[in-house]
Amino acid sequence: MTDFAATKAMFDLPEGMIYLDGNSLGPLPKAAPARVQKTLNDEWGEMLITGWNKAGWMDLPTRLGDRIGKLIGAPQGSVVLGDTLSIKVYQALASALALRPDRRIILSDTGNFPSDLYMAEGLARTLGPDYVLKTVAPEDVAAALDDEIAVLMLTEVDYRTGRLHDMAALTQHAHSVGALTVWDLAHSAGALPVDVTTCKADFAVGCTYKYLNSGPGGPAFIYVAPEHSDTATPALSGWLGHDAPFDFDLTYHPAPGISRMRVGTPAIVQMAALDAALDVWDHADIADVRARSIQLCDMFIERVEATCPQLQLASPRDGTQRGSQVSFRFEHGYPCMQALIARGVIGDFRAPDLMRFGFTPLYIGEDEVIGAARILADILESGAWDRPEFHARSAVT
Amino acid sequence: MTDFAATKAMFDLPEGMIYLDGNSLGPLPKAAPARVQKTLNDEWGEMLITGWNKAGWMDLPTRLGDRIGKLIGAPQGSVVLGDTLSIKVYQALASALALRPDRRIILSDTGNFPSDLYMAEGLARTLGPDYVLKTVAPEDVAAALDDEIAVLMLTEVDYRTGRLHDMAALTQHAHSVGALTVWDLAHSAGALPVDVTTCKADFAVGCTYKYLNSGPGGPAFIYVAPEHSDTATPALSGWLGHDAPFDFDLTYHPAPGISRMRVGTPAIVQMAALDAALDVWDHADIADVRARSIQLCDMFIERVEATCPQLQLASPRDGTQRGSQVSFRFEHGYPCMQALIARGVIGDFRAPDLMRFGFTPLYIGEDEVIGAARILADILESGAWDRPEFHARSAVT
Repeated sequence: MTDFAATKAMFDLPEGMIYLDGNSLGPLPKAAPARVQKTLNDEWGEMLITGWNKAGWMDLPTRLGDRIGKLIGAPQGSVVLGDTLSIKVYQALASALALRPDRRIILSDTGNFPSDLYMAEGLARTLGPDYVLKTVAPEDVAAALDDEIAVLMLTEVDYRTGRLHDMAALTQHAHSVGALTVWDLAHSAGALPVDVTTCKADFAVGCTYKYLNSGPGGPAFIYVAPEHSDTATPALSGWLGHDAPFDFDLTYHPAPGISRMRVGTPAIVQMAALDAALDVWDHADIADVRARSIQLCDMFIERVEATCPQLQLASPRDGTQRGSQVSFRFEHGYPCMQALIARGVIGDFRAPDLMRFGFTPLYIGEDEVIGAARILADILESGAWDRPEFHARSAVT
Repeated sequence: MTDFAATKAMFDLPEGMIYLDGNSLGPLPKAAPARVQKTLNDEWGEMLITGWNKAGWMDLPTRLGDRIGKLIGAPQGSVVLGDTLSIKVYQALASALALRPDRRIILSDTGNFPSDLYMAEGLARTLGPDYVLKTVAPEDVAAALDDEIAVLMLTEVDYRTGRLHDMAALTQHAHSVGALTVWDLAHSAGALPVDVTTCKADFAVGCTYKYLNSGPGGPAFIYVAPEHSDTATPALSGWLGHDAPFDFDLTYHPAPGISRMRVGTPAIVQMAALDAALDVWDHADIADVRARSIQLCDMFIERVEATCPQLQLASPRDGTQRGSQVSFRFEHGYPCMQALIARGVIGDFRAPDLMRFGFTPLYIGEDEVIGAARILADILESGAWDRPEFHARSAVT
């Protein structure tokens, strides 16, 4: 049984803040600053170029991949870190399309991250006028799967409402019409149990700065099913994905396995922070995290519905159908969220009217749920959200 | 006049090491650890998600772009940081090709980084069978430019020999046949004066972990000439390159100007190290750096040629035709370089037979030149390079 008091003690949380935005940026793990300092001073500072061998920098992307693999049901040697999630989406999608050369349609849904749709759009444009990104409503995905679809690209957890797709069923359905799948696990990895192997996902990608707490701009990961990893053709055919990078061949020959999904020089300093952040998972069981997250989310829904009649639940009521977040619709959601932030309750807002609250049991417990619900009720009852300063829009919402 | 004793004092160099590999990985600037700690503890730790606004993370890629812009003759607002150099090569090349839709040939040379050629290969494959990467010898580039070439993609400084291309002349020649140019400045930015504006370069890219000392995996940069920056079509059409990222539109609309070259979430921790590293340039003039670099390289050549007859100069003898490095050919270059490293002289080896020495006046002076030449002569004279342990190959050379 996971000791959540112990995991909470592994994070550095600001005094008096109720942080319900771990689904955007996880908090600082206490072990991260020292690990990063070690990378800067003892490795970069002392070893300089020899750190690539001596400090193990060159293997860090695959070593961290194996650590994340354990959280998503991926076998060792099937996940690698690097780049940003957008780049990994492009890479997975391009590889999947190349494996279905007779088809031209990417199917996705309007519940996907716009960022993923943008990358797919850019790739389709690059591939040529025959290629199409087709986007349907989340509930229409299954019906839209036919034998013209090359790739089904979905995000398991809707970033707005937390609605979960059935990854196993949709993957099976996609395969039944001959399509491949690319799953974005940005709001899944570290939030709920994922098993890419059992689900038979072909490709999966995700970021590490949300539920995996790697810090701002932490690297992304990509999983390629072992059956594809020796045949996938990288569109982003980078030096470190080459079979023999230090031979300096003029022609690209992809490395066997997942290494071909590496591109350029890995961001070692960010990866050091991620490595420290993943230590938390040596003390946490994802099944416990999931059970506790559902309990906390249910509790928040109950309290908000009892005291804030202006707000309308936008997330599935059934916890098993929801990621690790709760969203409410409110016409004045933007200023209301700003008022909450001013009171130390950090959630976020997603246009047009969604107030979003992430519950991450690694460092959030019942006290935070009770406190957040109480302050939200107070802001609504007092009308305190309706101050000019809360209406001003900032660069990041 | 730049005070090189003062700039040297800004770096943390290991005692007793002669570091001649700043062209692979610059050393740790003393200011970097504290700056990174501030980003971790005071920004990430205290501000969490609000750091994107409060700590200025969202604008960091363009703010740093302006700092680097000053070193390469780029106007403010024309450079942005992000991703790796490979990704930036892909992005620049895809944009350039899209601006020449009636042409299909990318021209490059065998002196380019293989990594750049690999990315171009991957892009050409993605664009379709009509697209071709044509690679000629460096001295044949000008003759190969004709009105079928869409883009001329070159690296100004040959990573092996240090041979310099004439960026202004080749760009002018490319334009005269209607081609655009993509210049890789990985071994130029921070090493010698570059003026993308005067040279009329269309796109330029570079990394920051060599002569700009940002640390292992530091972010890359991209320059887009102002005349193209509102019309370039990003193949990697990322969320942060969108005109209004926080509107969460389902369709991509590129931001005006250089911002459209942003892709995903920027690596803030690596950028903090870069920001600290760039402070050195507040105390150094690139013209002084260049003059001193030529002087140090000339001195090294003279001493090595006087004492090491086995070695053959592979770099241009004329300092004005050379980057900030000196390379020698030696049949036993690999074990010889390992023997040098064992004696604390850090250069590197590039297949098949090149021993490469970078001279970076910000922290390297005459004492290091004399010391390195002396130890090299000693290793050759004594035959100390021919020990079994120096023949063993490691992952990174």
